[in-house]
Amino acid sequence: MVPKVVFGQGSFDQLSSILAPQRKDKAPFIFLVDDVFKSNKELIDRINPRFNDKIVFISADEEPKTSQVDQIVKEIKTEFTYKPSGIIGIGGGTILDLAKAVSIMLTNKGSAADYQGWDLVKSKAIYHVGVPTISGTGAEVSRTTVLSGPVRKLGINSDFTPFDQVILDPDLTIGVPKNQWFYTGMDCFIHCVESLNGTFLNAFSQSYGEKAYDLCKEIFVDNVLSDEESRGKLMMASWHGGMSIAYSQVGVAHAMSYGLSYVLGTKHGVGNCIVFDHLEEFYPKDVILFKEMVKSHGIEIPKHLCANLTDNQLNTMIDIALSLVPLWENALGDNWETIITRDKLKTLYLKM
Amino acid sequence: MVPKVVFGQGSFDQLSSILAPQRKDKAPFIFLVDDVFKSNKELIDRINPRFNDKIVFISADEEPKTSQVDQIVKEIKTEFTYKPSGIIGIGGGTILDLAKAVSIMLTNKGSAADYQGWDLVKSKAIYHVGVPTISGTGAEVSRTTVLSGPVRKLGINSDFTPFDQVILDPDLTIGVPKNQWFYTGMDCFIHCVESLNGTFLNAFSQSYGEKAYDLCKEIFVDNVLSDEESRGKLMMASWHGGMSIAYSQVGVAHAMSYGLSYVLGTKHGVGNCIVFDHLEEFYPKDVILFKEMVKSHGIEIPKHLCANLTDNQLNTMIDIALSLVPLWENALGDNWETIITRDKLKTLYLKM
Repeated sequence: MVPKVVFGQGSFDQLSSILAPQRKDKAPFIFLVDDVFKSNKELIDRINPRFNDKIVFISADEEPKTSQVDQIVKEIKTEFTYKPSGIIGIGGGTILDLAKAVSIMLTNKGSAADYQGWDLVKSKAIYHVGVPTISGTGAEVSRTTVLSGPVRKLGINSDFTPFDQVILDPDLTIGVPKNQWFYTGMDCFIHCVESLNGTFLNAFSQSYGEKAYDLCKEIFVDNVLSDEESRGKLMMASWHGGMSIAYSQVGVAHAMSYGLSYVLGTKHGVGNCIVFDHLEEFYPKDVILFKEMVKSHGIEIPKHLCANLTDNQLNTMIDIALSLVPLWENALGDNWETIITRDKLKTLYLKM
Repeated sequence: MVPKVVFGQGSFDQLSSILAPQRKDKAPFIFLVDDVFKSNKELIDRINPRFNDKIVFISADEEPKTSQVDQIVKEIKTEFTYKPSGIIGIGGGTILDLAKAVSIMLTNKGSAADYQGWDLVKSKAIYHVGVPTISGTGAEVSRTTVLSGPVRKLGINSDFTPFDQVILDPDLTIGVPKNQWFYTGMDCFIHCVESLNGTFLNAFSQSYGEKAYDLCKEIFVDNVLSDEESRGKLMMASWHGGMSIAYSQVGVAHAMSYGLSYVLGTKHGVGNCIVFDHLEEFYPKDVILFKEMVKSHGIEIPKHLCANLTDNQLNTMIDIALSLVPLWENALGDNWETIITRDKLKTLYLKM
């Protein structure tokens, strides 16, 4: 688990004092920052880079890739003689996952793709800090960093993946566009549904999942909170939702969404929504609730993404989804293969 | 926060494999174990001490003391040439607090009493593991270790206090006597009430506090769970309750209970119950709920403890309670001194 966390409006201003004791002589801090903040002078001033520290702006338009991680690591190694004092990710799930992966790959040989899976990382990562600027993915708390690699979309799941420090400042989520707010919030909601309805559930995950689920309902269904309360609660929903799946597993929506994302580059949050919209069979009560939330917030879920796919593309999508065995086992138990056939997945994908 | 945790029935069997990578040549693991397990051969076999490891049985009949910590540290230093590889506490709040304090005092000079307060600890503690065998205190997750010292009852609150590893095995709580189960469960319930009704509350603490509160109601009010479910959920309630106060603060019940405990040696759980029973004025709704739980579980809350106190004892009790300024500030705000006078406390104590 993440050993240190600060929470609260304005807590981002503690960043410099949190980093100071971690600074090693001549070794820079590298700030990986979502490029939506590129012209946000106020935020950049608050990052307050010192000495040879470096801010790298990164687009979150595409899902993070192993090749992208390898490239960033290569650039850091080329530019600096000393290993960085730390990597600080400031952004949404994409940036946070990149920060986690880069901090791992600065101390482990080869390509990030070599470490996609469970517990393959051998050496402790470089000190890394996560600062979410959008809530829902749980990337700030999870022990994974989900990457699209040459042959799969899969996380680097390891004891060394979690951030050493997280800063939860709800004010940083001010200004997130409404669609994105909804999709990413639903990522959290769907985590909880998958965790709570999974066969891997235990009292630990259940208690976190239930709390995140309740917070999502407070925010997206009850709709009576002030904007300020809502931001704080959604940040905590993301945290608890991430904790819930850290000790259980996701399910049908994530398995299928990974396929969609791998083949079409669909972003994770909206991908989950596209898939979940068609999963009445697996999560009946919660798909109804989801459709109500979509309607009440006036959100458009993209449709007909798969109508014109080639057979090849559709097969790759199905391969990726089927490869995520732990997700299917969690969702449907040991006999999942009798329920989820290639034909079944094809029928489902073609509706999307 | 605690960086590593395992949860689940039977997870205690992972202890040896968790400790193995932490073992340093010639440096023993010291197991501080509640002496109720002294004749429990099965549990002792599962601890599986190796080489020069040592099991120390400790009575939890009295609240932990700074002098007791100093004595255990002295004995370890006398017996072993090398600093231990780790300290493992197996027991309730008393044993867990002792394990945390001993691990700190093995690397910091002087007496444990020198470190009662906030952030006074300078050196990182020895690796320490917590294994709760009763649920409710939150000691397994908190950044404090509450000790009675020569002049006060106060925690050693520091970044080095939390366990490096916690093992949450609900089966270890099988066999806890009913009264103790109730009193310790109520410690958690009262943490939540104090946190949720405090002025220090934020969305972080609130979400943890609400979940722990809801779990307590499920366990102690709704009364529909199996024993197995109830044990798992109470262990999680304790965890979330501890997290809630880690980022906020306790209140009136704890301040007054510390006074009771300091002067009369009243154990923390029952002390909280004795006090909370008379706090309608501060927590009206929850004191009613508490009285219902007491009644429905057929619990006797001890009465008339303070009737025969000397003036001197009563004054000490009031001094101890009043010294806990952050607790009063949290409970009643900046003007707490206009509400809580010595006379007010005297009247309340004399009811108990």
